[in-house]
Amino acid sequence: MPNPPAFQSLMLPNPLPLDGGESLSGVQIAYETYGELSPDKSNAILICHALTGDQFVASTHPVTGKEGWWMRMVGPGKPIDTDRFHVICANVIGSCIGSTGPASTADDDAPYAMRFPVITIRDMVRGLVALLDQMDIERLHTVIGGSMGGMQALSLAANWPERADRVLAIATTARHSAQNIAFHEVGRQAIMADPAWRDGDYYGEADAPDAGLAVARMAAHITYLSEDGLTEKFGRRLQDRDAKGFGFDADFQVESYLRYQGSGFTKRFDANSYLYITRAMDYFDLAEEHGGTLAQAFAGHDGGNGTRFCLVSFDTDWLYPTSESRHIVHALNAAGAPVSFVELSAPYGHDSFLLDVPALDRVVKGFLDG
Amino acid sequence: MPNPPAFQSLMLPNPLPLDGGESLSGVQIAYETYGELSPDKSNAILICHALTGDQFVASTHPVTGKEGWWMRMVGPGKPIDTDRFHVICANVIGSCIGSTGPASTADDDAPYAMRFPVITIRDMVRGLVALLDQMDIERLHTVIGGSMGGMQALSLAANWPERADRVLAIATTARHSAQNIAFHEVGRQAIMADPAWRDGDYYGEADAPDAGLAVARMAAHITYLSEDGLTEKFGRRLQDRDAKGFGFDADFQVESYLRYQGSGFTKRFDANSYLYITRAMDYFDLAEEHGGTLAQAFAGHDGGNGTRFCLVSFDTDWLYPTSESRHIVHALNAAGAPVSFVELSAPYGHDSFLLDVPALDRVVKGFLDG
Repeated sequence: MPNPPAFQSLMLPNPLPLDGGESLSGVQIAYETYGELSPDKSNAILICHALTGDQFVASTHPVTGKEGWWMRMVGPGKPIDTDRFHVICANVIGSCIGSTGPASTADDDAPYAMRFPVITIRDMVRGLVALLDQMDIERLHTVIGGSMGGMQALSLAANWPERADRVLAIATTARHSAQNIAFHEVGRQAIMADPAWRDGDYYGEADAPDAGLAVARMAAHITYLSEDGLTEKFGRRLQDRDAKGFGFDADFQVESYLRYQGSGFTKRFDANSYLYITRAMDYFDLAEEHGGTLAQAFAGHDGGNGTRFCLVSFDTDWLYPTSESRHIVHALNAAGAPVSFVELSAPYGHDSFLLDVPALDRVVKGFLDG
Repeated sequence: MPNPPAFQSLMLPNPLPLDGGESLSGVQIAYETYGELSPDKSNAILICHALTGDQFVASTHPVTGKEGWWMRMVGPGKPIDTDRFHVICANVIGSCIGSTGPASTADDDAPYAMRFPVITIRDMVRGLVALLDQMDIERLHTVIGGSMGGMQALSLAANWPERADRVLAIATTARHSAQNIAFHEVGRQAIMADPAWRDGDYYGEADAPDAGLAVARMAAHITYLSEDGLTEKFGRRLQDRDAKGFGFDADFQVESYLRYQGSGFTKRFDANSYLYITRAMDYFDLAEEHGGTLAQAFAGHDGGNGTRFCLVSFDTDWLYPTSESRHIVHALNAAGAPVSFVELSAPYGHDSFLLDVPALDRVVKGFLDG
């Protein structure tokens, strides 16, 4: 990863207490906003990003030059309409796009590296809530997120129940399963097995653990796609050749695609951040945080504090399948919180929440208008 | 991998022609046999092993000291009854348990390493058929295999239709899907990213690409298990601790298990063999080999040459799901070959064919007796 450009950010005035018992001082939160905040501050929408996401939800990423990751959803006249809403998207702590993370400088002027404390999803959200405090936004119109962003939306609802009118969680789960943890562990081991990782102390060195990070990304990427989607997109088609090469070059298009995904990722992401964020996701178990019962996590919404929930899953998502969303819906029902739920049909697997699924646009728009 | 002990093997008298156009001379095939061959040689069963399997189907592996990988299925009085049958199991070419592979010595007295030719499943079977020729066994009572072993059984039936009375293919496929290829490509990239791999020339060096090979094994291992099986076996249970460690040790049992699987594997398997065998599996497409139509692959059984087929799948196998077996059954139907098919219910995913599934025992015994 190259040296980052200057990101728009804000320093939290107080140390951030963490679930692990430590606290983090001098925390920077990098963020982007879109659309005007109304005078009564009632139109703020917080969008929470996924594992490798960032704050550039609807504007060009300054490192990759690529357009915002949810351009199709956020903008003037779009389902999350920036002519009506003030949209905030911040880089989570532990990440590497301007918010404090393992690559940031510690008190001794050296990078934290693996001295950075292990964080949780709730710690990320605590940082986001502190950002909202700085912005003097007491109650969000809506908190929205897909995948790890959905975990954050649920964590905000569970732990700061007064902070949002609406909670929209897409393609997500209330806890990481053994299989989810297993795939992340493969990625972490790939990074840590790379000698260039140097126990995390690679900042300023000639090379970073890009090879390990690329393998981690490749393994994860398979879990973001459906088997049928992969078959439709690539099948067994060969890459730029008429016949098998009888060698170890990328013969098949799917191999070439994965290699491209892996190497491209290393240009924009820090390997240590990948370790910390996957760890936070693996630690995520909203029920465990609240006495072992998921309904208890949503007890703050019992009797109705006005917060409404919407859960969306995709029929081809095998990373966080529909059953996980249904589990959350049952807990919200048990807690007496109003919730709507829809399973959408889309061919793209987990990644559907980022892709061209018009039905999702309608659900998002309908929920914000409702 | 340590230096192998002396394995029982046989040298093929003639060079082995390969699908890639080269041929391999001085080929050693390591094998084990169990039970007596009848005077009319009508009771021979060939068992084909899976990706990381070996010839020690029903006897102790001399390197690991572990008992045979299909002890529950093969032995006196077992479903594949060695009091009645002469069971042959051979290490495939390309592997590393005594048969010729990348670690073997080439004509220049140096290991082949990556100079070993890329092979196919059909090449492996060509080696097995040459072994049967040396044993003077013209027609097998049955050829049996699970996973990659099933691919070999199907390949033998397609390309040497006169060599077996019965074909039993378990938890397998007639072609590798894009997702299958993708998972293998992650494993290969993990190995090749390990600096200790040295472009394959690590034999005789102080270290081998064990770290990369372990990551490859971990990624593959997840695909061998069902999500429900993983949840039942491990869930989110912690390993030897009461609370999360807020570090990067193996907190969860599933992490510890995967690490153990990865590191244990490197003690018995050669990284280059892993590259070559996964490549062979990715190249496998029985229809493509036979003019693009799977039924055409089984044309040698049209009108009935007496060969009977049995296909078995498992309902929790997401690596080679039931739909793949059904696809093969339809092709056999179209070719006019007699086939029986059963989908068994078992919680273990793809690995079910190796584990305690009494229904499989009954199917195997019934098919051999029928």
